[in-house]
Amino acid sequence: MTPLETANTFMKHIESKDVNAATALLTSDISYENMPIDPVVGRDAVRQVLEGFLAPAGEVEWKVLSEWEVGSTVINERLDRFQIADGWLELPVAGFFEVTDGLITLWRDYFDMGSYMSQFSTLAS
Amino acid sequence: MTPLETANTFMKHIESKDVNAATALLTSDISYENMPIDPVVGRDAVRQVLEGFLAPAGEVEWKVLSEWEVGSTVINERLDRFQIADGWLELPVAGFFEVTDGLITLWRDYFDMGSYMSQFSTLAS
Repeated sequence: MTPLETANTFMKHIESKDVNAATALLTSDISYENMPIDPVVGRDAVRQVLEGFLAPAGEVEWKVLSEWEVGSTVINERLDRFQIADGWLELPVAGFFEVTDGLITLWRDYFDMGSYMSQFSTLAS
Repeated sequence: MTPLETANTFMKHIESKDVNAATALLTSDISYENMPIDPVVGRDAVRQVLEGFLAPAGEVEWKVLSEWEVGSTVINERLDRFQIADGWLELPVAGFFEVTDGLITLWRDYFDMGSYMSQFSTLAS
């Protein structure tokens, strides 16, 4: 797979909430960096974070609005959507992926944590 | 200038707090989209926002950590730094610029508003 195909396949597994398939596309020393918080390092740590993150969601849809592949780097602008109770949480995200030999070594997402938290608390209440 | 040179020159003018020189590189119908909040449309509206945004800062430094130019698009990861009172506010940002004929038609920044607000209130108090 190309870097772009790897990143997009990874995100398809996220949408299926198949954390095992998703994390199989990460290197063991992956660094997963949600910019408002500390990096999560290592495939097992990322698996735990993703399981906790996806658990409250019914359906998950990550709409890729634009995407670029430059060498080993994949960049996208997304609208990450999570079905929470009877509504949808929608979060604009800018994602950066570094891919080597078909595995993601770095995943960095920029987003507004307050937008996530305020929607989550409204939908979950 | 290439799209990359245009975006970087724009940011140099921001660092100099020269809003007139910066906004001269924007089209009259520029859309400036800070993702946590509503878009600001039009060069004059952007000028007002930038003047208000830069006013509290002493020195301004926008460190470009990585940058890409793909056709008319410029993408960067930055650490935007603002000197506020006797400290520095530091904000990770992912920026996307569309450039046509040497002018920026779209500027979209992804960042965590809470990181900005909490640092600002600490430094300004």
